[in-house]
Amino acid sequence: MNGLTKKRSKKAGLPPGSLIHIGDKKSDVVKITIIDYDANGFQEKEVSTIEECFIFRDNPSVTWINVEGIHQVEILEKLGSCFGLHPLIQEDILNTDQRPKTEDYGSYLYIVLKMLGYNNKKNGMTTEQVSLIFGRNFVISFQEGIEGDLFDPIRERLRTDKGRIRKMGPDYLAYSLLDSIIDNYFLVLEKLGEKIELLEDELVANPVQKTLHSIHAMKRELIFLRKSVWPLREVISGLSKSESSLIVDSTKIYLRDIYDHTIQVIDTIETFRDMATGMLDIYLSSTSNRLNAVMKVLTVIATIFMPLTFITGIYGMNFKYMPEREWEWGYPVVLLVMITIAAAMLVFFRKKKWLQGMMYQKNIK
Amino acid sequence: MNGLTKKRSKKAGLPPGSLIHIGDKKSDVVKITIIDYDANGFQEKEVSTIEECFIFRDNPSVTWINVEGIHQVEILEKLGSCFGLHPLIQEDILNTDQRPKTEDYGSYLYIVLKMLGYNNKKNGMTTEQVSLIFGRNFVISFQEGIEGDLFDPIRERLRTDKGRIRKMGPDYLAYSLLDSIIDNYFLVLEKLGEKIELLEDELVANPVQKTLHSIHAMKRELIFLRKSVWPLREVISGLSKSESSLIVDSTKIYLRDIYDHTIQVIDTIETFRDMATGMLDIYLSSTSNRLNAVMKVLTVIATIFMPLTFITGIYGMNFKYMPEREWEWGYPVVLLVMITIAAAMLVFFRKKKWLQGMMYQKNIK
Amino acid sequence: MNGLTKKRSKKAGLPPGSLIHIGDKKSDVVKITIIDYDANGFQEKEVSTIEECFIFRDNPSVTWINVEGIHQVEILEKLGSCFGLHPLIQEDILNTDQRPKTEDYGSYLYIVLKMLGYNNKKNGMTTEQVSLIFGRNFVISFQEGIEGDLFDPIRERLRTDKGRIRKMGPDYLAYSLLDSIIDNYFLVLEKLGEKIELLEDELVANPVQKTLHSIHAMKRELIFLRKSVWPLREVISGLSKSESSLIVDSTKIYLRDIYDHTIQVIDTIETFRDMATGMLDIYLSSTSNRLNAVMKVLTVIATIFMPLTFITGIYGMNFKYMPEREWEWGYPVVLLVMITIAAAMLVFFRKKKWLQGMMYQKNIK
Amino acid sequence: MNGLTKKRSKKAGLPPGSLIHIGDKKSDVVKITIIDYDANGFQEKEVSTIEECFIFRDNPSVTWINVEGIHQVEILEKLGSCFGLHPLIQEDILNTDQRPKTEDYGSYLYIVLKMLGYNNKKNGMTTEQVSLIFGRNFVISFQEGIEGDLFDPIRERLRTDKGRIRKMGPDYLAYSLLDSIIDNYFLVLEKLGEKIELLEDELVANPVQKTLHSIHAMKRELIFLRKSVWPLREVISGLSKSESSLIVDSTKIYLRDIYDHTIQVIDTIETFRDMATGMLDIYLSSTSNRLNAVMKVLTVIATIFMPLTFITGIYGMNFKYMPEREWEWGYPVVLLVMITIAAAMLVFFRKKKWLQGMMYQKNIK
Amino acid sequence: MNGLTKKRSKKAGLPPGSLIHIGDKKSDVVKITIIDYDANGFQEKEVSTIEECFIFRDNPSVTWINVEGIHQVEILEKLGSCFGLHPLIQEDILNTDQRPKTEDYGSYLYIVLKMLGYNNKKNGMTTEQVSLIFGRNFVISFQEGIEGDLFDPIRERLRTDKGRIRKMGPDYLAYSLLDSIIDNYFLVLEKLGEKIELLEDELVANPVQKTLHSIHAMKRELIFLRKSVWPLREVISGLSKSESSLIVDSTKIYLRDIYDHTIQVIDTIETFRDMATGMLDIYLSSTSNRLNAVMKVLTVIATIFMPLTFITGIYGMNFKYMPEREWEWGYPVVLLVMITIAAAMLVFFRKKKWLQGMMYQKNIK
Repeated sequence: MNGLTKKRSKKAGLPPGSLIHIGDKKSDVVKITIIDYDANGFQEKEVSTIEECFIFRDNPSVTWINVEGIHQVEILEKLGSCFGLHPLIQEDILNTDQRPKTEDYGSYLYIVLKMLGYNNKKNGMTTEQVSLIFGRNFVISFQEGIEGDLFDPIRERLRTDKGRIRKMGPDYLAYSLLDSIIDNYFLVLEKLGEKIELLEDELVANPVQKTLHSIHAMKRELIFLRKSVWPLREVISGLSKSESSLIVDSTKIYLRDIYDHTIQVIDTIETFRDMATGMLDIYLSSTSNRLNAVMKVLTVIATIFMPLTFITGIYGMNFKYMPEREWEWGYPVVLLVMITIAAAMLVFFRKKKWLQGMMYQKNIK
Repeated sequence: MNGLTKKRSKKAGLPPGSLIHIGDKKSDVVKITIIDYDANGFQEKEVSTIEECFIFRDNPSVTWINVEGIHQVEILEKLGSCFGLHPLIQEDILNTDQRPKTEDYGSYLYIVLKMLGYNNKKNGMTTEQVSLIFGRNFVISFQEGIEGDLFDPIRERLRTDKGRIRKMGPDYLAYSLLDSIIDNYFLVLEKLGEKIELLEDELVANPVQKTLHSIHAMKRELIFLRKSVWPLREVISGLSKSESSLIVDSTKIYLRDIYDHTIQVIDTIETFRDMATGMLDIYLSSTSNRLNAVMKVLTVIATIFMPLTFITGIYGMNFKYMPEREWEWGYPVVLLVMITIAAAMLVFFRKKKWLQGMMYQKNIK
Repeated sequence: MNGLTKKRSKKAGLPPGSLIHIGDKKSDVVKITIIDYDANGFQEKEVSTIEECFIFRDNPSVTWINVEGIHQVEILEKLGSCFGLHPLIQEDILNTDQRPKTEDYGSYLYIVLKMLGYNNKKNGMTTEQVSLIFGRNFVISFQEGIEGDLFDPIRERLRTDKGRIRKMGPDYLAYSLLDSIIDNYFLVLEKLGEKIELLEDELVANPVQKTLHSIHAMKRELIFLRKSVWPLREVISGLSKSESSLIVDSTKIYLRDIYDHTIQVIDTIETFRDMATGMLDIYLSSTSNRLNAVMKVLTVIATIFMPLTFITGIYGMNFKYMPEREWEWGYPVVLLVMITIAAAMLVFFRKKKWLQGMMYQKNIK
Repeated sequence: MNGLTKKRSKKAGLPPGSLIHIGDKKSDVVKITIIDYDANGFQEKEVSTIEECFIFRDNPSVTWINVEGIHQVEILEKLGSCFGLHPLIQEDILNTDQRPKTEDYGSYLYIVLKMLGYNNKKNGMTTEQVSLIFGRNFVISFQEGIEGDLFDPIRERLRTDKGRIRKMGPDYLAYSLLDSIIDNYFLVLEKLGEKIELLEDELVANPVQKTLHSIHAMKRELIFLRKSVWPLREVISGLSKSESSLIVDSTKIYLRDIYDHTIQVIDTIETFRDMATGMLDIYLSSTSNRLNAVMKVLTVIATIFMPLTFITGIYGMNFKYMPEREWEWGYPVVLLVMITIAAAMLVFFRKKKWLQGMMYQKNIK
Repeated sequence: MNGLTKKRSKKAGLPPGSLIHIGDKKSDVVKITIIDYDANGFQEKEVSTIEECFIFRDNPSVTWINVEGIHQVEILEKLGSCFGLHPLIQEDILNTDQRPKTEDYGSYLYIVLKMLGYNNKKNGMTTEQVSLIFGRNFVISFQEGIEGDLFDPIRERLRTDKGRIRKMGPDYLAYSLLDSIIDNYFLVLEKLGEKIELLEDELVANPVQKTLHSIHAMKRELIFLRKSVWPLREVISGLSKSESSLIVDSTKIYLRDIYDHTIQVIDTIETFRDMATGMLDIYLSSTSNRLNAVMKVLTVIATIFMPLTFITGIYGMNFKYMPEREWEWGYPVVLLVMITIAAAMLVFFRKKKWLQGMMYQKNIK
């Protein structure tokens, strides 16, 4: 079932809000880290049980709870009942087949989107679903648990009190997380751009059946990417125009900025799609060009040798009375005639530029 | 007329509201079951005449009347006059060629949609039209009558008072029915996804004419699916934004959730369509690649043997004066010349990578 | 000019409201029938001069004037001045090249649309423009005058006082006329659906050039159909949301119903278009498949016989010193060699499944 | 630069409102005619200097100034300063590469659009830009100066006081000019429709490379037409909904009428585009059908003669011991064998219907 | 990474507002020029340090600061803190991969777009990002620093007090800059138009593989152009409808004018795209036409010579008893027969118009 659909069907028939993890289990243990900060203080720790988080709930400072690994349903349940998360949100967090969306539940906002990465070893995209929930004084983020994430620079900025991040509220932290995820889309696009250029070179130099399959694999990656990014536009636009009191006006300016980035990502994806379509056209037409070249070789050969062979056939006949055959100069004259015919054919083909075509083919192939 | 259109025309000329069953008769008997419940009580029975339902009408508890089989028009007529259903709704219920839609008649809401299933034996989709009507204290559901439905888990939840369903009103029951229908779309999509992957494998390994027909059959299934699901988006969106007092606010949150599911289903269908189109391109280009390979074989053979045959023709001529013929080494020298020519040709074709092409073809075919 | 455009240009330069009949004259005589009814009475007569209609104008009962044949401009002029029809409407009625539209002139509403039929003898669609005008107490309908129409069941319902039609106003009569026209679209679609299925069978069994032309003829019919039906959506939607006092609320529910039918017709047309496109793809690919099969036959033949003929050529040479030729077993050994080569070739082609391809071709062709 | 772009670049860097004529000079002299009328009077004259127009400015009767030829910039400048035209409008009038648009400058309205004609001699469209400006009591029209225009019937109606035109204001005159221009689009479409039908006949009877080029020329004409007409929809719609006091309500009804005509023109253009695309498909597939037919001829010939030639080769070998050769009946038996093989082949090909294909090809070609 | 994507990823993880130059460094030094003017005075100077600009800030006259070269981040930082520019704007100015957009920050407006040029030497487009910021009394423009710009005519108009520019505010200056940039798009389009016409000629005269690559290069240029211009529509439309007090009403009329120009540019790009697609179709079909022609040559040759060679084969057989061989007229009769067959074939092919096809091919090739 590689990537086309996930086994959502195992939830069919269950009541809404049933907490069932849908997707691949990407890590064994669940790692929970807490960062608590305000303009004056900073505290960071990794906890082993989720209950340790609860003391931060009524704390006025901003608390960021990051959960890596979502397959242990009870952790989510406890967090949910502590922070009052709606059962449907809990269900959505566990289902890794979500479309990016945002929902406003009054006392907190829920955002779900895809975190894309590029695995250089496998030469392919990695994808991980990230759920963000932020309220008056907390941000909770859920990741599927792939080793490493994109949030280290943000943690570093929090630790070292660089920039304005410690002075701002949870909405700015959520924005920063979104920003780092979307910025990384550009990296993925750059890698895809490199792939496209390699494919284009291959297409000009020596297009084979494998090239076609590569172009289609590329198209499928773009279809997937598009599915992940298009809805994001609405999500970010919705946030930047949100009337929720959880997002302050100065943060909305920043959200408008990542809205622009999202549009740019979409633009680039569309451009790549156009290019992939163009490459397909080139591939198909180079296939028929090559057929043309092959047929020209065959035709040239046949057109030269068929008449000649016919002539040899004539003088291979065993009629008793064939005057030319007795003639002393018969053989050289026939040879001369045949050379003349062959030469005339070659001149004819040269004028039609068919021989050139054969040479051309040799060069580009 | 397999599936393209249904014999709607037999209604042409009749007054609106004429009750005529359009579609295939999918069961012989009509099965009517009643479930009546509130937070405290639960009652379930199968009735043989529709009149037995009427006593529940003025009952404050929620009554769910489920009718399987719609070809007995008089049952619908009686139900309609008891619950005050508009003649046009009655007509719509009988016409199994409906587009999904919802209509608000003030004291009740009418929803019609398709229930999809997947028949593993026939390896194909099954489809059944479901009509839902719900008012202040009742839900009436009509099915076409295919054996078995998707509502058993809901019945079970009602019986065992699991979840919140017994505490909620008919709007929540209607939502639950919709939810179980839409959840099952994912199952159908998974099956289609598996089929697509099988087709893709076949396409790479050995594409034949039959593969093309399978791709097109797939495309047609997707067209049908799309027709069933696209309008559903508006239906669910309309319900979740409805101003009808029949839907309470807490249920609307759940409706928003199945709205998301519907969008997801649509997204997947569109992705599948893109993939089917891509497969078509691969099929067509592999056809012309194969032609290319065939022509190369022909050209290689002709190019090698035509000149050789010509040479044999020369020395097959019967001229009296052909000095080479008399020469003792004539025969071996000519043989040598011919071998040289053949070898040169082979080198030429190897450089052009045509022989490789022939090998390649042998491997993938 | 078969169907592409009508000679509208003959009106160029004339002042607006010039009454000129554009289109083919479809009948010789103009037939005018009047039906006058209310809940209590019914009167029906065919009149020979249009002036006989005028006495009904100030009658409170509903009067339906049906005019078949629009080429006698003066009839329209008289009716127009009697009922106060705007000159532009009169112009539109005469121009049979109208796009479906509706216009509200305050004291009356004007609707124009296409009445489609299917002529079984010619195996093709027939099309006739219908204009409807209805006011406080009258409905006027204009047809182009093709023998027979779809309104007979409505006349019958009026005569026999069946259903509610006699109790309702002219808006309900206009609705009934629209309903009978749109219902008949389904019949036309069913006929097209049958044609499509025949074409698909032909496509699988034996696609020839004629099949292609049939597919394109089908596509053109669909383009025409689409042009007739798409604008209808807006027309009906406009009527069902109209603020005109001429349409009562209970009729609007019925208009919503035919709005749904229109959407269904559009859906089916779009599906048919998708299918026609798919059939085109199959046709094109089956053409290249057949080329492939032809080329394989050629290649197999050439590959087997060219080397063999070359060998016979060798031993046909007349060199004096050719040891094999003198050898007693020369002939049988060469024959054996040739048989071996031919057999090897056949095995090679069998492995490449080319022979199978030839058989396959024979079967499906 | 035939038609693709006009030398607009020569204006780059100039301040806005710079009066520079862009486009081809289509006449040598500039012809100015004035028609001044109201319900009671009518006056028409051709003037040589633009200053003669100015006396009509403060006249309450409607004045129509028609300027044919726009390359004399000073005429426009003088008119502009007399009637208070904005510099940007003056610039737009001179630039014949305008997109149809309308602009409301309070005391006057500016409309620019294309006047299309069909030149029967050149068998091609002619195009001329028309600018209309109308205010409280004047209409000014600018044409590029091609001999003859479409306004003669309107002049005639003004002269003879036919219809209502003399009783109406400048808005009705402007409408009449627009109406006559748009009515003429139908003529152009009819001519294109005739061309399309000729092309379709050619396509069925004998498609050659030239047919393809004709189809593409047609497509380009349609692209150009589309560019001229699409924006017109908004223009007319804007006028008919305009809140300007310069357009009275009764005129708006007439504008709605030409809005319908515009929609009809657009519909027809889109239909023609669909048909041109369909013709391209037929062309391409008939090309590959013909290739198929050619290859069948080759294959039939090769398949019949290669085995036969091989047999003659066998008995052309010079082995000493070839028993058949000595046999008295050898020659006739071999001939018989060869005839049998050829007959068998022909039967085989007949069964495969290849010979039929060759006949078929001959017929349609 | 030629042009597909820019190394935006190097910013991933940095806090928002981080000033990092993204793009190619197009000049070594940064050139800053200041023009300060009002209706009465004019002052122009080139400064070496950015601090020299600051004295103009509180000056009521209009100050235009033009910065060529954006790779020295500190210059931007100083300007930003002097004029109070938001960090996100500063970040956007440095990132040369921006999508055209406009943003209203209350006391100033920010516009970013692409300045296109055409390099005749390289026969290709040049592109440079231009950022404009204008407030109550200043305009700041940033260019990437390519030698020369399009603003010289504006400088000249300012110097010589030509037109109204000195009398107007910074909004008019900003408009003038935009106008000169957009006017230059027409130049680029004209160049592309010329290229397209060259390509079309090549396509008709002698289409080779290189032609295809040129068409695709053209398509890519158009994709790029489209990406640069489409968003501009919204930008200019936004400005012309802006409620900012920084843009006076008389300037908005001018902005509407360049809005029209932008639409015209977009229209032309779309037309070019349609034409490029059409050219692709012609290319592909001419390829298959040529294949057809090649195959006809082969078929004609084979069909003529195969039967003839077969006949010579018959009389080359060495049967003892072959009566014809002994016959005195055998040889001339066989020759005659062969000539007759060849002539018959030629007549057959002439009737099928295949020979004509060969001639035709020679002519257009």
